[in-house]
Amino acid sequence: MPLFDRDTRLTRISDTSWQGTLSPAWNIGDNPNGGYMVACALRALNDVLPHPHPLSVTTHFLRTGIAGEAFEIQIELIRTGRTLSTVRATLLQAAKARIEILAAYGDLDTGVGVGTTLTVPPPELPEPGSCPLRSGETQGIHLPILERLEVRLHPAQADAGNYPRAVVSGWIRHVDSRDPDAPSLVVFADAFPPSPFAMLGVVGWVPTLELTVHVRAIPAPGWIRAEFSTRDLQGGRMIESGQLWDSNGVLVAQSRQLGLVMNQSTST
Amino acid sequence: MPLFDRDTRLTRISDTSWQGTLSPAWNIGDNPNGGYMVACALRALNDVLPHPHPLSVTTHFLRTGIAGEAFEIQIELIRTGRTLSTVRATLLQAAKARIEILAAYGDLDTGVGVGTTLTVPPPELPEPGSCPLRSGETQGIHLPILERLEVRLHPAQADAGNYPRAVVSGWIRHVDSRDPDAPSLVVFADAFPPSPFAMLGVVGWVPTLELTVHVRAIPAPGWIRAEFSTRDLQGGRMIESGQLWDSNGVLVAQSRQLGLVMNQSTST
Repeated sequence: MPLFDRDTRLTRISDTSWQGTLSPAWNIGDNPNGGYMVACALRALNDVLPHPHPLSVTTHFLRTGIAGEAFEIQIELIRTGRTLSTVRATLLQAAKARIEILAAYGDLDTGVGVGTTLTVPPPELPEPGSCPLRSGETQGIHLPILERLEVRLHPAQADAGNYPRAVVSGWIRHVDSRDPDAPSLVVFADAFPPSPFAMLGVVGWVPTLELTVHVRAIPAPGWIRAEFSTRDLQGGRMIESGQLWDSNGVLVAQSRQLGLVMNQSTST
Repeated sequence: MPLFDRDTRLTRISDTSWQGTLSPAWNIGDNPNGGYMVACALRALNDVLPHPHPLSVTTHFLRTGIAGEAFEIQIELIRTGRTLSTVRATLLQAAKARIEILAAYGDLDTGVGVGTTLTVPPPELPEPGSCPLRSGETQGIHLPILERLEVRLHPAQADAGNYPRAVVSGWIRHVDSRDPDAPSLVVFADAFPPSPFAMLGVVGWVPTLELTVHVRAIPAPGWIRAEFSTRDLQGGRMIESGQLWDSNGVLVAQSRQLGLVMNQSTST
């Protein structure tokens, strides 16, 4: 079984609840990666919803997860229509909600309106072999998640503080070359270094308050190319926007998060 | 009392529920504008949350509202912390949920991290007096909402189908010149013609499935300048991103929505 599938395995315990364990292999420092926690919840949703693909997934990060410990997912179906399901999901550990999700599911294989296509071309990037691996050393933290995801950064953006804009781009895939799917894109949208690092250098913790991922198309097998940028940082609050493309150059996901950019000496 | 305040008045009926009536004055065609319905729910949240400003408001539009009819708002506090409150709100009419909101509130007057500011300058626009009023005729629908909001469009984008990109920009304010506030920005983010019109001409209905608005700063009095663009349209599903600036040129809100762009002859 691919690592991603094994690490997001769930046991259903009722019509609306599931149990699992957060693997420490997806940690950023000592805490489980947020996107990984979302992926666990999406497994539960894929169990029950009549539509196969997450079109819009908004997650509020309430408390850090506890690596190595059991969790429970609770879901509530808000509405199921012909083309769309709307659902709420909560991941709890130690009786406290850790993440809260509001999502819409649909079927990306079915067009629903005009045939006109507009898209954004992928950025120019050196081949993956010429892009350095993401390293925890640059940020001064341990990154167990790199045992699960191969993240390669644009060489000019890999050294914190040396780039004129708050942009990070690069390549990403599962380390065991498992094919990317819609839940993978949600994880990939939360696995790059925060884009302000490229411009501001290593600042403090950059906690995500809220992340919305729109899956736009089912990705083809192979590497995913991604670019994240922050053009709006006010009062320590940033809006970071991301785009992900598959190996055919199709724009397969867009993301936007509200995050905090803390000073190195402070914590929330 | 300003029209916006009068039309979003609520009566509290319990710790977690409120009642009001959707004014037909905010209709788009026969249906209440989505942003107006969100503003009604935000009134309830502002009643009870310890933090004053909506930082992130995600709304899923489940069913159209019913103009002129009573509604009920139900809220659930998910978490209240020192700097952030996370909350869920549902607006119901005729015993059915119409919109579902997941939001985070904080205090925009208080900085929380690094002092560095990044921002996006407002677009160049002719003065409001040189920008034509939004007209329902162009779209072939009745727009009662124009009795509440003065919406002026960039002259080159006002005629549907004559612009090379899916962009719409212009000016907006309350018709009675009530000062804009954070809830106003959420309404303003949903009050312009869909940006695909500028490029594709008048297509069919463009229902919003999900809209996330990030309020970035409290707006100064005066006109709000806004720009909305769609660069990603696949299978009839669009991602439209918006930016709003106040009269000082401060970026006061960003928005992103997942919408459908229907053919003229079809409906969902």
